[in-house]
Amino acid sequence: MKRKPVVALTMPDSTRKRLFDSVNTKALKRIAGKVIANRKDAKPELADLKRMLRDADVVISSWGSPQITEAALASAPRLKLICHAAGTVKPYISDAVWQRRIRVTSSAAAIAVAVAETSLTCILAGLKDLFRIRRMLQRGVDWWDARTTSREIYRKNIGIIGASHVGRNVIRLLDSFDVNVLLYDPYVTAARAKKLGVTKVTLSQLLKRSHVVSLHAPSTDETYHMLAAKQFRMMRDDAVFVNTARGSCVDEKALVRELKKGRFFAFIDVTDPEPPKKRHAFYKLDNVVLTPHLAGTVDDITPLAAMSIEEVRLFSQGQKQMYPVTQKMLAHIG
Amino acid sequence: MKRKPVVALTMPDSTRKRLFDSVNTKALKRIAGKVIANRKDAKPELADLKRMLRDADVVISSWGSPQITEAALASAPRLKLICHAAGTVKPYISDAVWQRRIRVTSSAAAIAVAVAETSLTCILAGLKDLFRIRRMLQRGVDWWDARTTSREIYRKNIGIIGASHVGRNVIRLLDSFDVNVLLYDPYVTAARAKKLGVTKVTLSQLLKRSHVVSLHAPSTDETYHMLAAKQFRMMRDDAVFVNTARGSCVDEKALVRELKKGRFFAFIDVTDPEPPKKRHAFYKLDNVVLTPHLAGTVDDITPLAAMSIEEVRLFSQGQKQMYPVTQKMLAHIG
Repeated sequence: MKRKPVVALTMPDSTRKRLFDSVNTKALKRIAGKVIANRKDAKPELADLKRMLRDADVVISSWGSPQITEAALASAPRLKLICHAAGTVKPYISDAVWQRRIRVTSSAAAIAVAVAETSLTCILAGLKDLFRIRRMLQRGVDWWDARTTSREIYRKNIGIIGASHVGRNVIRLLDSFDVNVLLYDPYVTAARAKKLGVTKVTLSQLLKRSHVVSLHAPSTDETYHMLAAKQFRMMRDDAVFVNTARGSCVDEKALVRELKKGRFFAFIDVTDPEPPKKRHAFYKLDNVVLTPHLAGTVDDITPLAAMSIEEVRLFSQGQKQMYPVTQKMLAHIG
Repeated sequence: MKRKPVVALTMPDSTRKRLFDSVNTKALKRIAGKVIANRKDAKPELADLKRMLRDADVVISSWGSPQITEAALASAPRLKLICHAAGTVKPYISDAVWQRRIRVTSSAAAIAVAVAETSLTCILAGLKDLFRIRRMLQRGVDWWDARTTSREIYRKNIGIIGASHVGRNVIRLLDSFDVNVLLYDPYVTAARAKKLGVTKVTLSQLLKRSHVVSLHAPSTDETYHMLAAKQFRMMRDDAVFVNTARGSCVDEKALVRELKKGRFFAFIDVTDPEPPKKRHAFYKLDNVVLTPHLAGTVDDITPLAAMSIEEVRLFSQGQKQMYPVTQKMLAHIG
């Protein structure tokens, strides 16, 4: 475009301040004709959103931003780009966005590293069995007897479900270990798997063979309850299950049934609904480590805004987006 | 030597069976003129040891082997090599071994990877604060409030004390993360530190700046209580302290005093004495994860025996040992 774009920042005020430090604020001002920010520390009401979108060419959204619905778009005649300075973009847009052929980008790639690092932490802590062994010592089990369930990482089968941004980063991190990585991802070809240095397998093969099953699938219709009673029954009794992806991929009732038998160990960072109800078994079971959706928690979220600013710059110069999200991708990446 | 060496295996029967699977047993038989094994599932008494050593050119020792004392050596006229198929060799030999100029080797290098992997697990789990956050949820803290102490790995300062086999492996594993590694090791030159990709610092600098302090020093006179009241006071309040090395390096009373103030978080895998007394604060404190010397636990110990067999082969062919241990090294590597 010939003039500099008008950019609307729709996230709550406190989130905006965490995203836009002085460096990012300057960078945005350099490329934007005008910046319209939500000054309330809350999600804008529809009327406020409409006012913000009236002249906007671009929306930068993030956690706590309102959904860009058909109603909102009715008052946004010039909107051509939505940059989501956070991970999952799906709840923040609508079909109307695709119908209007508005471009969408996401900063998921910038969060994926943190999520992958948390997943690796759970994979390692699960194999070493740190949580149960600490508890055993606290309960008075003999020092030398308490360590018998700790396993080394060496030559274990690590099953990765989904070669998403996160899944690929976990695969990269596992590269420093002498392990055998099994990948289930129906959208990855054997050639691509080979390039990633992993063995492409079916979901059943992965579940039966893996010492660790780490979920990195998106939340879509296709992945809803992809791990249910049948799948959990296939898993090794001594397996470690890690879910830093989405709770909806898992039939939690079936999972709890297996966990209550003392079968495998689970790291559950995401649930459905979230948070789980009080008194949910996830809080209490010795073979579950429940954490509050912290995998993607990043102290410093300025890189997410920087990624969105770069997308705005590319857009304003008529170039390709770095991390575009398309309607087709959303069907299977969530 | 011209004839094949006579090899005495001094570890308890069950440990010998774990070390020498069919592959290792065959390999040993190929290079040994005779193998004399302790058939009891216990440490041999001095009289039994003397009988075993009478014709032995080589001892392969491991966990549960007896110390090779002056008294034992008096009945071991031909002994020229001790290969320790485990980590720390010091308690298994004596000054008399050095006086007799008997060669000593250790399989510490083969265990170092497992110890380093456990250390990395603690480093990551500590930064992510998984243990405290899980406990907060169990105690009813709000889902979104409970995650505020979780930190990303990105750009943290990781302080490594000691570029031992283990320390160097931790440095290698940290290579996949965007972190700043600080090294304190008086025996490492600045040039060597640069080659390792780390910043050489003093102990005080390391303690003051590091988000994680991970100890990889040996147990020697020099390292006894190297971390005491003064050192712990220098550490950041939000630091993570990891000890998978030796309990004697730490003044535990001083450590407990700081931990009781709620300052930093500690992963304690080794204590002095070991195990700690019942009712020790290490068992109870929320900011301590006590584990029973599991860092070096390896499911499969056959690689340790294979390393010793290779040392025997090198010896019998008059070649240099792969991982020799000298009296001088023991003074600062333990």
